[in-house]
Amino acid sequence: MDVHGMSDRIIDRIGGPQDLKELTTDEVVVLAAEIRDFLVTKVARTGGHLGPNLGVVEITLALHRVFDSPKDRILFDTGHQAYVHKIVTGRQDGFEMLRSRGGLSGYPSRAESDHDIIENSHASTALSYADGLAKAYALRGEKRWVAAVVGDGALTGGMCWEALNNIAAAKNPVVMVVNDNGRSYSPTIGGLAEHLSTLRLNPGYEKVLDLVKEQLGRTPLVGAPLYEVLHAVKRGIKDAVAPQAMFEDLGIKYVGPVDGHDQAAMESALRRAKGFGGPVIVHAVTRKGYGYRPAEDDEADCLHSPSTFDPETGKPLAPSSLKWTGVFADELVAIADERADIVGITAAMSGPTGIAKLMAKYPERAYDVGIAEQHAATSAAGLAIGGLHPVVAVYATFLNRAFDQVLLDVAMHKLPVTFVLDRAGITGPDGPSHYGIWDMSVFGVVPGLRIAAPRDAVTLRAELREAVGVEDGPTIVRFPTGAVPADLPAVDRVGPIDVLLQDPDGRKDVLIVAVGAMGHIAVEAAARLAEQGYGATVVDPRWVRPVPVELVGLATAHRLVVTIEDGVRSGGVGDAIAKTLRDAGADVPLRDLGVEPDWHPHGTRPELLADLGLTAQDVARTVTGWLAGIVSAADR
Amino acid sequence: MDVHGMSDRIIDRIGGPQDLKELTTDEVVVLAAEIRDFLVTKVARTGGHLGPNLGVVEITLALHRVFDSPKDRILFDTGHQAYVHKIVTGRQDGFEMLRSRGGLSGYPSRAESDHDIIENSHASTALSYADGLAKAYALRGEKRWVAAVVGDGALTGGMCWEALNNIAAAKNPVVMVVNDNGRSYSPTIGGLAEHLSTLRLNPGYEKVLDLVKEQLGRTPLVGAPLYEVLHAVKRGIKDAVAPQAMFEDLGIKYVGPVDGHDQAAMESALRRAKGFGGPVIVHAVTRKGYGYRPAEDDEADCLHSPSTFDPETGKPLAPSSLKWTGVFADELVAIADERADIVGITAAMSGPTGIAKLMAKYPERAYDVGIAEQHAATSAAGLAIGGLHPVVAVYATFLNRAFDQVLLDVAMHKLPVTFVLDRAGITGPDGPSHYGIWDMSVFGVVPGLRIAAPRDAVTLRAELREAVGVEDGPTIVRFPTGAVPADLPAVDRVGPIDVLLQDPDGRKDVLIVAVGAMGHIAVEAAARLAEQGYGATVVDPRWVRPVPVELVGLATAHRLVVTIEDGVRSGGVGDAIAKTLRDAGADVPLRDLGVEPDWHPHGTRPELLADLGLTAQDVARTVTGWLAGIVSAADR
Repeated sequence: MDVHGMSDRIIDRIGGPQDLKELTTDEVVVLAAEIRDFLVTKVARTGGHLGPNLGVVEITLALHRVFDSPKDRILFDTGHQAYVHKIVTGRQDGFEMLRSRGGLSGYPSRAESDHDIIENSHASTALSYADGLAKAYALRGEKRWVAAVVGDGALTGGMCWEALNNIAAAKNPVVMVVNDNGRSYSPTIGGLAEHLSTLRLNPGYEKVLDLVKEQLGRTPLVGAPLYEVLHAVKRGIKDAVAPQAMFEDLGIKYVGPVDGHDQAAMESALRRAKGFGGPVIVHAVTRKGYGYRPAEDDEADCLHSPSTFDPETGKPLAPSSLKWTGVFADELVAIADERADIVGITAAMSGPTGIAKLMAKYPERAYDVGIAEQHAATSAAGLAIGGLHPVVAVYATFLNRAFDQVLLDVAMHKLPVTFVLDRAGITGPDGPSHYGIWDMSVFGVVPGLRIAAPRDAVTLRAELREAVGVEDGPTIVRFPTGAVPADLPAVDRVGPIDVLLQDPDGRKDVLIVAVGAMGHIAVEAAARLAEQGYGATVVDPRWVRPVPVELVGLATAHRLVVTIEDGVRSGGVGDAIAKTLRDAGADVPLRDLGVEPDWHPHGTRPELLADLGLTAQDVARTVTGWLAGIVSAADR
Repeated sequence: MDVHGMSDRIIDRIGGPQDLKELTTDEVVVLAAEIRDFLVTKVARTGGHLGPNLGVVEITLALHRVFDSPKDRILFDTGHQAYVHKIVTGRQDGFEMLRSRGGLSGYPSRAESDHDIIENSHASTALSYADGLAKAYALRGEKRWVAAVVGDGALTGGMCWEALNNIAAAKNPVVMVVNDNGRSYSPTIGGLAEHLSTLRLNPGYEKVLDLVKEQLGRTPLVGAPLYEVLHAVKRGIKDAVAPQAMFEDLGIKYVGPVDGHDQAAMESALRRAKGFGGPVIVHAVTRKGYGYRPAEDDEADCLHSPSTFDPETGKPLAPSSLKWTGVFADELVAIADERADIVGITAAMSGPTGIAKLMAKYPERAYDVGIAEQHAATSAAGLAIGGLHPVVAVYATFLNRAFDQVLLDVAMHKLPVTFVLDRAGITGPDGPSHYGIWDMSVFGVVPGLRIAAPRDAVTLRAELREAVGVEDGPTIVRFPTGAVPADLPAVDRVGPIDVLLQDPDGRKDVLIVAVGAMGHIAVEAAARLAEQGYGATVVDPRWVRPVPVELVGLATAHRLVVTIEDGVRSGGVGDAIAKTLRDAGADVPLRDLGVEPDWHPHGTRPELLADLGLTAQDVARTVTGWLAGIVSAADR
């Protein structure tokens, strides 16, 4: 498969979709192999989403040969599967800087190309966009096709069903390619094997595909209830798409199943779908990681999104350090050992959120609900009413999907549910749709909801235990991504507040309130302030909602209060503390540092913090300026 | 049906579910008639949800005879259909004060009864609760049944599909009663007739019900695409529930269709379902408003939720005044007359949101997407990419369902979509799950999203036009419920800010920033302040996000700034203005008045505002206190 050194690679002649159309099918098959080689080589150096893109090479090439982008609209649900689309729309050079600051985005980006439409990479949205686009073109009398690629995992999200119902009713031409690889992030083990056979070997289907048979052959037969969730959806797809009862008289046509790695078959299916003139589902069976043995063989997630790796072996280049997720996963199991009422919930991400560890030890006490954050929250409410204490582990950015459910179904009912928000704050290479910067503002309005922001492994373990000890309402424990920093012990305690640093000379110029992982930066900034002759106290409130009242006394003992948080400034912890001080009639000036509410580009966490003026050096300089202003105002 | 004056009414002997179980079926049939009479008589005096409750009399009686509440759990999705449940669980007396301050809630309430579980009345949540409850009882080894009543309309919400998938996979005993009345709020006209016949007369079904035939006979045959949305879902139900392909081998059993007004048939179906021991759907065909001719004959919504009315005729007692909704509806049509790119979206509430008016005039330019706010937002994003300007009209409380979609699918893509939030702020008799008090805080964090809060009919019309004139991002226009107040003209303008009142003597003690409908209260409070010797300026910023920078200059010209908003104080407009002042280094003290973030009980809007200290008198008194404090501090 290695084509390096060849001077006549087809891939080098592809500057846009038009170039694809001039190839023979045989040439496209060669191109597909070249693209896989390109993907492995590039992603090995930069890290990125590998498995999903290896699985959609032929689908993407077929879409661009059958449709006429950008006039026709090709939408990718969960945009991390758009690398091949980027390659064939003139962005090969960008892969040198994939997901790096200033480089190519890991998702579709309208700034990069007219061929890109959806920049958000939360799952299950593409069919809704497609419905809107198709309605717009129908109303405006424009003859443009809308094609959307959606994974079988994304179909576990309720939004997809809402969209299917509407697309069926509207009868506009929408081609929905279901990329059925039998996986969300996790491998499709368990009960799926039995059910896949029912699904894919239905005698009503046109033919039995080699790929299908092969997949069935390699799937273990042991049962695991959680995967039947996926199955339920798969059954739903089948009945939604098969030319049978369900959507038949509504005009949703079904084409497939098609071997998603058979270039000619994919193109043929898409041409048939295009010719129908109404909503059509093309059911493409693919394999995540197809064509790259280390990805195909990866039991965990088919090299879903590796860091840099050795392309020969697929093994990571850097040793893995202790991550926030790992600390949480271990402590959750420890707590579950002690308390039989602790159960875990994941929305199709048991590995990345650490729930897998609980699931392995207590399989009957962990639930994978599919990519369904709404159901995760409200079924947790049900579990809590039933006498259990659920721990719902999700990425911070994804809990936004369930705001209403957290507000009303959980908090209004004062139910003991703990939400653990991984990847909170500035995350990095995944860019604006994945930053977990909204949680403290949005969930900060929820009455009775307590929010903890641990600063290190010790406080994560402690605050998680405090959270699951709360019985009269929901709790959030939120922490960032990546390696957990060194422990930062408290030097004193004021009520629930940890004092991290006090001026050795007792000067109280500024109280720095550091939220969670901003503790280290605050302590370092305080050291720099001391060099400037200013005495700082650094505290970590540990629980940021509700605001601990002890902060008022601490604040008024200083000339200035500065808050530092890893979330949007608007409605965040800074605003909440300012209000607490106002309500108490405490007139000490406050300044808040945090993330400006905006769409911040991808990059590493340190790069982003530097851009936002949130390094220790920045903080020290900014606070020095404020203190100087206050001193001069006081002198007037 | 009138049983008044009879001394031996069965209803008077019902103190709890146990009393029901001692009745013969014939007696239960009599009781059902008495309950309908009771409902009509009581709701005629208090207002409330009538049509839905008339439709679930037999279902509710059957549930309480077959199951053993509160040990078994009976859940009502969209709790406004729980009146009958309240009657049979000992709360008949409460109906004198239904939905009044201090009286019976219009929804299930755990404070009222152990038989109540879900207090939230947003649709489509009950099956998720049921899944969690059933999992908890399974894990704890408790033998308790979980039964949930869910309407066919609620099944248009994606959450229900997420729940069905999980319930199917978990295989726990959950009895799901689908109350299929062919309606959400709106009547089931149009394409439904044809499709109902396919659905309900399927030869695989056990029998053809009289009720079904009757309903088919009275449904017009004219086609209207939007109702096919409902149909798609109905078809989905059928395939989900029929003992056929879809969920068959997953263990979801189907019982029905059952005539939901045939007491013996309902009980028999529920007993069969209970005996199955796994997840079962009982498909009950009912008629909204059943048994009360004015409700059955009401084309609009079967007297869904009338105000006080004449029980003989069903006609309202009070003449209707000009409502906020009406002003919006008329202006939207006027704008649509001028601009072909304006389209409307409703989530199954075309009447209550005013979209019906656009729909009547331009049926091809208004879309009913079902109870599916997520799809409403993201399909609007698609429409906008396609060159249109969608106006999504929803209740403020319901847009919380689509926070993530508004944030990422719409705002991150900088798309021109206007969300019109009706019933914003303190609403009244519907209680805590319907207050629209979160929007300005939650959506206030969304970058690039502009929020307008009109104060009267004139500004609603103007700000709606300004909103649909914005081309580079989303807008929100939010207004309260009820009668629109008298026009409150500006006396001056500072940039975009309307000055509503200036002190005639030029005194500038306090700047009152009144958000939207709080304008009248602020002006009246200012008059009271003048009597106390304080000069106030009252301004309406019109657009509260982003905060107009001109407020900084206005603020610093005064000794105190007071903000008044009809939303939660946490992260609201007060916080945003405080931050704007802080960021500008403007040290004028600010105090913010608004709704404390909490679960406020039902009552009228004036009652609630009084409870919250937000009457003109309260505001004047509070501000006087603050001003006195500032004066004395300045004197020190």
